[in-house]
Amino acid sequence: MSSFSASLNSAAQANDRLKTIQGQVHPMTQQYDHPLDPLSATEISVASTLIKAKHLGKRFQFRYVTLVEPPKKQLTAYLDEELAGKTPSQKPDRIVEALYSVFDNETGWSYKCYEGIVNLTTSQVVREQPLPEGAAEPLSFRTMATAQAILVESREFKDAVAKLNLPENIVIEIDPWMYGVDQPKAGPSRLSFLCYARHPSNNHPDGNIYSIPLPIIPLMDLQTMEVLSIEPAASGGTQDGFTYGTHPEKAIDHCIANEYVPELQPRGLRKDLKPLQVVQPEGASFTIKGRLVEWQKWRFRVGWNYREGAVIHDVTYDGRRVFHRLSLSDMTVPYGDPRTPYHRKQAFDLGDLGAGLSANNLALGCDCLGLIHYFPGALTTHTGEGEVKGNAVCLHEQDMGIGWKHTNYRTDRAVLTRNRMLVVQQILTVANYEYIFAWQFDQAGAIHFETRATGILSTCLIDPGKVSEWGNVVSPGVLAQYHQHIFCLRIDPAIDGWQNSVVQEEAVSLPISAERNPFGNAFVTEKQVIKTSSYADAAPHKNRVFKIINPSKFNPHSKNPVSYKLVPHTGQLLLADPGSVAAARARFAQHHIWVTKHRDEDLWCAGKYTNQAFREDGGVQDMIERNENVENDDILVWHTFGMTHIPRVEDFPVMPVEIHQVSLKPADFFDRNPAIDVPASSQLANKSVLYDEFNASKSGSCCS
Amino acid sequence: MSSFSASLNSAAQANDRLKTIQGQVHPMTQQYDHPLDPLSATEISVASTLIKAKHLGKRFQFRYVTLVEPPKKQLTAYLDEELAGKTPSQKPDRIVEALYSVFDNETGWSYKCYEGIVNLTTSQVVREQPLPEGAAEPLSFRTMATAQAILVESREFKDAVAKLNLPENIVIEIDPWMYGVDQPKAGPSRLSFLCYARHPSNNHPDGNIYSIPLPIIPLMDLQTMEVLSIEPAASGGTQDGFTYGTHPEKAIDHCIANEYVPELQPRGLRKDLKPLQVVQPEGASFTIKGRLVEWQKWRFRVGWNYREGAVIHDVTYDGRRVFHRLSLSDMTVPYGDPRTPYHRKQAFDLGDLGAGLSANNLALGCDCLGLIHYFPGALTTHTGEGEVKGNAVCLHEQDMGIGWKHTNYRTDRAVLTRNRMLVVQQILTVANYEYIFAWQFDQAGAIHFETRATGILSTCLIDPGKVSEWGNVVSPGVLAQYHQHIFCLRIDPAIDGWQNSVVQEEAVSLPISAERNPFGNAFVTEKQVIKTSSYADAAPHKNRVFKIINPSKFNPHSKNPVSYKLVPHTGQLLLADPGSVAAARARFAQHHIWVTKHRDEDLWCAGKYTNQAFREDGGVQDMIERNENVENDDILVWHTFGMTHIPRVEDFPVMPVEIHQVSLKPADFFDRNPAIDVPASSQLANKSVLYDEFNASKSGSCCS
Repeated sequence: MSSFSASLNSAAQANDRLKTIQGQVHPMTQQYDHPLDPLSATEISVASTLIKAKHLGKRFQFRYVTLVEPPKKQLTAYLDEELAGKTPSQKPDRIVEALYSVFDNETGWSYKCYEGIVNLTTSQVVREQPLPEGAAEPLSFRTMATAQAILVESREFKDAVAKLNLPENIVIEIDPWMYGVDQPKAGPSRLSFLCYARHPSNNHPDGNIYSIPLPIIPLMDLQTMEVLSIEPAASGGTQDGFTYGTHPEKAIDHCIANEYVPELQPRGLRKDLKPLQVVQPEGASFTIKGRLVEWQKWRFRVGWNYREGAVIHDVTYDGRRVFHRLSLSDMTVPYGDPRTPYHRKQAFDLGDLGAGLSANNLALGCDCLGLIHYFPGALTTHTGEGEVKGNAVCLHEQDMGIGWKHTNYRTDRAVLTRNRMLVVQQILTVANYEYIFAWQFDQAGAIHFETRATGILSTCLIDPGKVSEWGNVVSPGVLAQYHQHIFCLRIDPAIDGWQNSVVQEEAVSLPISAERNPFGNAFVTEKQVIKTSSYADAAPHKNRVFKIINPSKFNPHSKNPVSYKLVPHTGQLLLADPGSVAAARARFAQHHIWVTKHRDEDLWCAGKYTNQAFREDGGVQDMIERNENVENDDILVWHTFGMTHIPRVEDFPVMPVEIHQVSLKPADFFDRNPAIDVPASSQLANKSVLYDEFNASKSGSCCS
Repeated sequence: MSSFSASLNSAAQANDRLKTIQGQVHPMTQQYDHPLDPLSATEISVASTLIKAKHLGKRFQFRYVTLVEPPKKQLTAYLDEELAGKTPSQKPDRIVEALYSVFDNETGWSYKCYEGIVNLTTSQVVREQPLPEGAAEPLSFRTMATAQAILVESREFKDAVAKLNLPENIVIEIDPWMYGVDQPKAGPSRLSFLCYARHPSNNHPDGNIYSIPLPIIPLMDLQTMEVLSIEPAASGGTQDGFTYGTHPEKAIDHCIANEYVPELQPRGLRKDLKPLQVVQPEGASFTIKGRLVEWQKWRFRVGWNYREGAVIHDVTYDGRRVFHRLSLSDMTVPYGDPRTPYHRKQAFDLGDLGAGLSANNLALGCDCLGLIHYFPGALTTHTGEGEVKGNAVCLHEQDMGIGWKHTNYRTDRAVLTRNRMLVVQQILTVANYEYIFAWQFDQAGAIHFETRATGILSTCLIDPGKVSEWGNVVSPGVLAQYHQHIFCLRIDPAIDGWQNSVVQEEAVSLPISAERNPFGNAFVTEKQVIKTSSYADAAPHKNRVFKIINPSKFNPHSKNPVSYKLVPHTGQLLLADPGSVAAARARFAQHHIWVTKHRDEDLWCAGKYTNQAFREDGGVQDMIERNENVENDDILVWHTFGMTHIPRVEDFPVMPVEIHQVSLKPADFFDRNPAIDVPASSQLANKSVLYDEFNASKSGSCCS
């Protein structure tokens, strides 16, 4: 298996590389432009070189090298000076964290994982420590590819496949999958594999393998690269209970080629969809300087790292601070099928792997229309080199329909503005599935976070003609198990300053009474300040919203504290039994809103090390249990939301986007609609065309 | 006041007009093209002429002439033949309903209102009857203008205004408003008026009068056109309780000009928004034949009437029936301020007035981008003539981002389609406020109904420096009272046929148990068929959805009945006390979902006559109380949804769109994603542009 032998870079090679780079370290690393700029490829390479120098002669595998953003106190001092138009008096040291395995021997798989902290400004490895007891390192593409290559060559795997009586020459494809633990101390380094095949009728490299699931799930020990077991995977129906179904003699003969690539469509493609183009003849309304974006009074920075992908930093509107940092912190995708080994299907796509790692390299003309800017993102190769994904994040403007309109019926004059938005988008591919995440800024001061779930369902085999209570049969022989997608946003607010509070507000009926409500139509709002770190839930039937306020600044008209309002998404929370390991691992998924006191290290709603964790360690539940003040303080607001996915047949072979959106809207932050100065929509600028006139002009029947 | 004297068309004029038209009646009315085509202007004129002929010598005021769609049995027979490609064997008679006042005398205001039914096919007035006991006719623009003109000339009004010490030469503007009753038998024909003024500093005809509210609310009796009272309107703050506040000597001097028209912006307009155009070089993907629309396997008809505005009829996808009729049935906007007379602010914008009546005449290049088709809508003048609003409804395609995507990480090949939608849109102006309603059809078989609330808040005066528990102060002296917008969709389903059922489905955890859920991750769906007419509520925490199924047709893969799924909007329901008149009038607003057995006359969730009704008469509550079978039957599904509007300062002077959406999605209706045959997105068709390249080409730095 030559494809993965390159990971075994010799100590000698490492030393050579080190010598080349060391001379450049000092001058180069001083050159970073802004403390929030993501690491460059060179910075990554330098950091790994410094680490390697501490273990001369050892074999390495790098998992990541990532920026440690400056401590908030230091950073806000810098940003305050910057916003005031001054040259910041002190540039913070450039600190990075690396995660890497050091192999025990020159050959073999046994390794120990370390966290290293490197100060690039001083060219020093500041700290190095093994992972905390019980923690497992996140998955890496390298390890997964290596393990898979060893698996497919193994006797155990070949024997198991032989028993399936697959058609001759069938091509098996495998998705390595996180091993979702089911009990404490399951062992920190395991990997499971979901197995599929190309349909023999086309054997197409882009065939939809998820329509041909194989009823086996191999498990491997990553410290030994040995096959632990080839677990049989149930293919029975509801009538079979927890037995494994009656695998037919030919396991997959009832599966069909249910393809998504255009050239494999049996009924061809639609021919009546005409092009629709977005044209911006005078260019974009945004400007980009490095990672700094300015657009329609907004100003923010687009950060990036291997774990969160795009991060939005230091957001101001018209010179006023709004949010310090916005990011998707993590997510969990637990499956509801209790039949072993399916019960272990629970992914934490950011913590177990990484949104930056999984980000698509976007293509012009496919993912967005109009004038597009791409931000690159640097990642770390297994050998520790920096490597750039050129189109990791895209930025563009969208027309989102009408922004505001009023027609004065007295004069019949309509004034209308369109709703232009600026979109920062990234798309993740996590094996079968795609997530499209977009931060959208509008002209009325609101920020929206949109998720689009698409891609291919994670499927398993079901015997011919059966149905199952654990999922829906979406194609012959294909069971799409019920599952959930539960996201958690981390919101570091800066509503007109660094000291904020959260107010829970509801609309409440008053009972009929002569004094307060004689006719019974009255209702009021009830507000409750969250004083100590705690959670809360969405309650749409009460119109419950959460206002992030600055308790020291007031709106001149309403006299309310200035605020941004979070209208929580109301999706169902985690369904796993509270006593389950699945629930212990994802306590963040059990309430919609969490308010905690800011700490620099509190980045991860489900804890830092999610892979194979048997509990959420250092996540939001632990944070609130510190019982800290969150009133008029430096706080964090976390919003958990998502969907329970009961798959439809229409979600296969690739599912139409399922869209969810969360909004942060100014509520008495401004003294009027901040979009009131957007120029009115006009035919002069928009150049719309009448359908009848277009047709007439094409048919030559007009003005000829 | 000459502007309203034209309403007093003499009997002689009516007779002349009748003679002219009668000769044309028979040949013309046979010519209607399709039973679902809206009435033409000529049909309206003919119908009113036939009615006038029954009351020769009488003065008339027409409120509406509207199509009575053929009885469903007759209509479905026609549509079934049509769908089968046959010439329908029987064309239903063309029936219209008219509502009109016949004045008691040649002069004076006293009148009686009638419902008339006219058969245009036979040129006969089939029936004529007075309005039901206690019912009031809906508002008409004519009556409102007449009443207002009389009001402003009245001594009572002039005296009341004089007491306000308004600046000299100030221009008062008045919005006639429905009189929301507060007790049974309040009298069937009253009108109230909300009074405002232009700001004296600009006296602009398009000034935002809602920033200068006057603290009086006149009431008139429409049978006598006499001023009943000029009610003082509270301008106090929370500290004033139910007293009326301390009107300052100069009532409105603390109000400012808070304007929305571009030329009145004190800080100017933004200058950095570049044009963004939608270009469809090969034309539209839809075709239009009369009111028939075909696009991307969808086929439906766009109906229209004065009350609902656009109605979607006879929807099929790829030749299969999906929905028979889709419409917004009605809405209510109750206000939560208990201070008399504000407690009577409760609008039913469709039943009290009419969405078609209030529809904007849309303008090319303002309301939509790209290639636009407009549908006209015919209305009835007060004299009974048909009058056409040319651009009442618009239809166009929109790009709504990514439709589906999958990247095969093995080959790095991404296949992506964009999410093109077809949008049928209308925009209502109801005095201060705007509603944008859009039916959106997507390529994956889903239909969405989107509401955008915009326009100007209905405001009242508040004394300087005060705040109120009944609303938010959005501009100096301007209180925007808390209120709700509660809509109700009427869904007449035809899921693969005429006999359907509704299934309520939830995702439900299982407790940990060795037999069924050993690891605690399991969950299942629970389904419950609604058997007799009843209501249900949204329950997002249970992932509750409502599937409209055809219990006789099954998906070949899942074996489930074919269905469309309604994911209910979870907005807060009516806040008015259940014992209030406000609640009795809007029982539809107290539950999210209503399932009733179809009857032809069941069109109105809040009853036919909402204006001044003191209870919802013949609405959904009455329908469910018939206790009829709704399983495997001809059924109606009603969906109530909306928002509690706690106004923000940012919602003034014109509010940014507040968007809500309800979706009807196929769920095991198709045998796969119906959008899988959409051609992949490509740069060839989309012609996107790189930001950097655009800038380089403009600056001449590239390839020069």
